[in-house]
Amino acid sequence: MHKVIFDTDPGVDDAMALLFLHHHKDIDLIGVTTVFGNARIEVTTRNALFLKREWKIDAPVVQGAGETFIPHRVTHEPPKHIHGADGLGNIGVPETVDIEPDPRPAAQFIIDMVRKYPGEVTLVAVGRMTNLANALKQDPEIVSLVRQVVIMGGAFEVPGNVTPAAEANIHGDPEAADIVATATWPVVWIGLDVTMQTVMTRTQLKEIADAAGRRGKLLFDLSQFYIDFYEGLVDDGMVVHDSCACAYVVAPELFATRSGTVRVVCGGLADGKTIQKPDGRGFGPSDWDNLPSQKIAVGINDKAVLKLIHDTIVSVKED
Amino acid sequence: MHKVIFDTDPGVDDAMALLFLHHHKDIDLIGVTTVFGNARIEVTTRNALFLKREWKIDAPVVQGAGETFIPHRVTHEPPKHIHGADGLGNIGVPETVDIEPDPRPAAQFIIDMVRKYPGEVTLVAVGRMTNLANALKQDPEIVSLVRQVVIMGGAFEVPGNVTPAAEANIHGDPEAADIVATATWPVVWIGLDVTMQTVMTRTQLKEIADAAGRRGKLLFDLSQFYIDFYEGLVDDGMVVHDSCACAYVVAPELFATRSGTVRVVCGGLADGKTIQKPDGRGFGPSDWDNLPSQKIAVGINDKAVLKLIHDTIVSVKED
Ligand SMILES: [Ca+2]
Ligand SMILES: [Ca+2]
Repeated sequence: MHKVIFDTDPGVDDAMALLFLHHHKDIDLIGVTTVFGNARIEVTTRNALFLKREWKIDAPVVQGAGETFIPHRVTHEPPKHIHGADGLGNIGVPETVDIEPDPRPAAQFIIDMVRKYPGEVTLVAVGRMTNLANALKQDPEIVSLVRQVVIMGGAFEVPGNVTPAAEANIHGDPEAADIVATATWPVVWIGLDVTMQTVMTRTQLKEIADAAGRRGKLLFDLSQFYIDFYEGLVDDGMVVHDSCACAYVVAPELFATRSGTVRVVCGGLADGKTIQKPDGRGFGPSDWDNLPSQKIAVGINDKAVLKLIHDTIVSVKED
Repeated sequence: MHKVIFDTDPGVDDAMALLFLHHHKDIDLIGVTTVFGNARIEVTTRNALFLKREWKIDAPVVQGAGETFIPHRVTHEPPKHIHGADGLGNIGVPETVDIEPDPRPAAQFIIDMVRKYPGEVTLVAVGRMTNLANALKQDPEIVSLVRQVVIMGGAFEVPGNVTPAAEANIHGDPEAADIVATATWPVVWIGLDVTMQTVMTRTQLKEIADAAGRRGKLLFDLSQFYIDFYEGLVDDGMVVHDSCACAYVVAPELFATRSGTVRVVCGGLADGKTIQKPDGRGFGPSDWDNLPSQKIAVGINDKAVLKLIHDTIVSVKED
């Protein structure tokens, strides 16, 4: 079993990933921590609470950071053209949801859970890295207590998506990401290098919706706006970025990885660009020296990952 | 015919590229401009003069920049472990060569030739971009008079070679490279993305040496130190970076390219990193906007390029 804290900014592809974690038999989802990104923090938290209610998820929702690690560092408007004004594809999420988040800040919740289950907790971070960086700052010892960190983020050897250099989650808080990247805990980066080729077609999504009952119907409805955005960028369907990171937790054999130290560019033209120094390659002295080696995904069995997502989501019948 | 000015820092792979240009029937080599890089400027100029004499090259050698576009910006020691202390594989190049360089600075020579042959001159730049940037600064109008600029440099979607981010020619003068990249002349970037897979084996080099007489013998001898450096980095042999750029001039069909604006990161972790914004891809507002689209090589028929180098170098019999 994998005890997972899902750090997320729902977000359409976040929603699918959440349903995947909720339904997978080898995942024990122990918390959903929210972060700003696809929408403001109040909105991503509201959305997480909404999905918790609709999908009957036991894990608590815990509100996290509403601004970057270095205050006011990044102040872009949320990408309403991708995830909708409500962050969930403009399906009409209610203004408020009648359940309360856990009262702790997300960083504190992460620390508490990691210390409660030493060596057992996997952090799956599919938004900006702010909560993880805040937790590290507050309690640096957690690095030796976390099982692993799986990140959806970065663009190593492909163009970014928010700038030609950078992927959105990392560009949204580069300093936080560099802290997470260089800490001595095991990190796996699932970046655009592999997620951009993992495209769920409208038909595949419909099949999930039809087989998964009311939960699938909600997933289908909230994904339509996002699919419309991706029209023209990919052949037909939606890039399931965040679900790829979740798939890695249970099926790492579906990914090819490369080891090496990862740094995040902070500032300038390439702000938020992720760069790995591959292990075993010779370079001159550089800012990558004497830092831990981490894994980045360089290949994916996209068909098998899509099938895993399908099979997992439809595996639980409506209750 | 392609009128070519070869801007170079010989350098072992520079030497092979020079012999290629000298021997190719469709190339009219009208000048060899030198730049610091693989060795100090006095050494790269001496080496160019030495190769001119040994290989009976008519084109003048013209000394160029001995420091970066922004003075003192980059002050690394030359890579003596790659090209030897003499820049030509420690073969014992004489201290001085009994021919004089053209008295003009390289930037002025470039301007003069471009204005003498408007629309005809191809600049093949296989060292730092300093001379080209200096020429642009001195006479911005040349952008509309140059036929094309072919650069060996950059690492777009592969790791760098001098740092995990950057390739040596670009890392050696990032500001100059960004000026060259964003000028409104046609630029083609032949970077590590394709050169690293273009490896001439010891056997192939020996075949050239044996077939090309005294010229081939010198090329063989000066390459041995460089080959020893590449042992362990590539399977067996030498990466012929600079010759790839020369091959592009006469055989662009052996390359796959992608169009888009190129920028060079100046400063910070990714200093000297080259990043292209692929045409037709959507991004937010960025530092790549409203600049000319250029080509980068993303694929190479390496076997055919190696054959072209072989056939070209052995095509001219000893005189
Ligand atoms: Ca997300
Ligand atoms: Ca060179």
